[in-house]
Amino acid sequence: MHDRIASEAELIQAFLAPLAAGAPGAFGLRDDAALLTVEPGMDMVVTNDPIVAGVHFFADDRADDIAWKALAVNMSDLAAKAARPIAYTLALGFPEAPERAWMTNFAQGLRTAQEVFGCHLIGGDTDRTSGPLSIGVAAIGVVPKGEFVTRSGAKAGDRIFVTGTLGDSALGLRLHREPNLLTFALTEGEKAFLVGRYLRPSPRLALAPALREFASAALDISDGLIKDLVRLADGRGATIAFPRLPLSPSTRAALASDARILNWVLSGGDDYEILAAVRPESAREFAAKALSHGVQVTEIGSLHDADGVSVVDAAGRPIEIDNLGYDHFAVGDAV
Amino acid sequence: MHDRIASEAELIQAFLAPLAAGAPGAFGLRDDAALLTVEPGMDMVVTNDPIVAGVHFFADDRADDIAWKALAVNMSDLAAKAARPIAYTLALGFPEAPERAWMTNFAQGLRTAQEVFGCHLIGGDTDRTSGPLSIGVAAIGVVPKGEFVTRSGAKAGDRIFVTGTLGDSALGLRLHREPNLLTFALTEGEKAFLVGRYLRPSPRLALAPALREFASAALDISDGLIKDLVRLADGRGATIAFPRLPLSPSTRAALASDARILNWVLSGGDDYEILAAVRPESAREFAAKALSHGVQVTEIGSLHDADGVSVVDAAGRPIEIDNLGYDHFAVGDAV
Repeated sequence: MHDRIASEAELIQAFLAPLAAGAPGAFGLRDDAALLTVEPGMDMVVTNDPIVAGVHFFADDRADDIAWKALAVNMSDLAAKAARPIAYTLALGFPEAPERAWMTNFAQGLRTAQEVFGCHLIGGDTDRTSGPLSIGVAAIGVVPKGEFVTRSGAKAGDRIFVTGTLGDSALGLRLHREPNLLTFALTEGEKAFLVGRYLRPSPRLALAPALREFASAALDISDGLIKDLVRLADGRGATIAFPRLPLSPSTRAALASDARILNWVLSGGDDYEILAAVRPESAREFAAKALSHGVQVTEIGSLHDADGVSVVDAAGRPIEIDNLGYDHFAVGDAV
Repeated sequence: MHDRIASEAELIQAFLAPLAAGAPGAFGLRDDAALLTVEPGMDMVVTNDPIVAGVHFFADDRADDIAWKALAVNMSDLAAKAARPIAYTLALGFPEAPERAWMTNFAQGLRTAQEVFGCHLIGGDTDRTSGPLSIGVAAIGVVPKGEFVTRSGAKAGDRIFVTGTLGDSALGLRLHREPNLLTFALTEGEKAFLVGRYLRPSPRLALAPALREFASAALDISDGLIKDLVRLADGRGATIAFPRLPLSPSTRAALASDARILNWVLSGGDDYEILAAVRPESAREFAAKALSHGVQVTEIGSLHDADGVSVVDAAGRPIEIDNLGYDHFAVGDAV
């Protein structure tokens, strides 16, 4: 029935080593560690963000979607720092030896992702464990010396920008689990779009030149807009206008049918869009440069010296926020 | 009863951020990714080797021992490549929110380890998952350009060297699970030594100068001497003499009481010693330079053009090997 891989050597050499072919320092995944040469004038940027079945994806998701997501969530961190990806390592934990067909699809998903993101597999490890499938990617990028964009550094007066659209992934996650949700509000095409946004986040790597030139601070939105906005504000106040938030037509249609979806837009998480602070005098140039690199950015509010982060409606009245975002360990949070 | 940490922010800021204090590019673990500056003339070396409860350690092992091992197994990979560690990331997966006392001990173990190994925590991620405790370390080292020691590169005629002593950890693992094993052969002190070798492997980072100057190939022994010797031989033949293998007094005593322990010495795994190939004309200088840096190395055999890897006894007769080493996916291997 099951055509499972027979050894670590098969898993690595038949399925993973081809993904390292473009990286001479990976030594065909036959060495203990990988060698990376960094070009003069560049610094390295490192991130390590694993994904685990039951937390970040479902064990029966398509293997190529899982592979994409494992790489994409790390690329999104690099994108927020204005870095260019060059390499990644892969630490795989399997509950049982995977089937060959699954590994073929998984490796194909990695290949597509690494080609889109411009990096190569250079090393890692495979284990069999008693836990769920886990995929640990550590990603390495480069940034010109002195041009790393930090999370702190925003100032009062800075305009707040966000890439893409918000809330799609939070809605997509619910639709992925319950396809009959929102049947009266959304077409099948709109649902497919939202589920796709959940399964295949789009790291905004093309934003790097605009971030490097104009951003005073940036981070990627993984735990929900509000929670990550608090991080961007870094002790300052921030006010954003809900009507200005960029929403896809699908999320707009869902929100029109159920106003509670507002909370998913504000705090749903998994957006993998970039939140950036830009000095007011550079706001127009930042948006133009982003667009010239193919990334739509939207100004959603500004930072100020008053206390707290608030969301206001079209009339400038505060909107109450139910949920401040995802925390793996807070009491009452479901895994 | 349980005094558990209350949020990701507490876990990161109270317990982990102090470990990043010496690394400015870690930004106090408050950013999406870490920034690393590589000195001119150096290349980067990257490894990513997670450890998981039930596979690489026991969930009720002391938290500081677990922390040491998580870092040490990655440092051993860097050591085998003649690299100097500079930084590591940490991806933690917890089955439930950890207790504060456990996190205190775990962080203390990391602090000790990183001080001994000369590196800093620079980033990572924490998740709650349905699986066992998992600790994913990705370690980053540097090596002077052109001096990375690869796993391939050994030639016929090369002498085979190994650091430290073999088999201690495999014996230590069994004694850790069954303290009453070998009661008649070993003193309590000998048992404690062996268990310590399992719990706290000693990465041979001090071997780097000798490896860089003299080794034609090297790797660390994690899956058992024989399996890793096949890798070092890289298609060539190798013959090693069992009587020459460096054994601790404890392992020697155990072997005297039960000859089957020979197989644990040859294939037990988790040694985290370094296996290196050295041109015969450099053998003496290699050993002297290693010793001058505080690392005992032993010549155990040589590579040749004939087929296969063999172990011979004092009379030069082949010894039969029962078990070729650890494979996570091979049929019949227990996890």
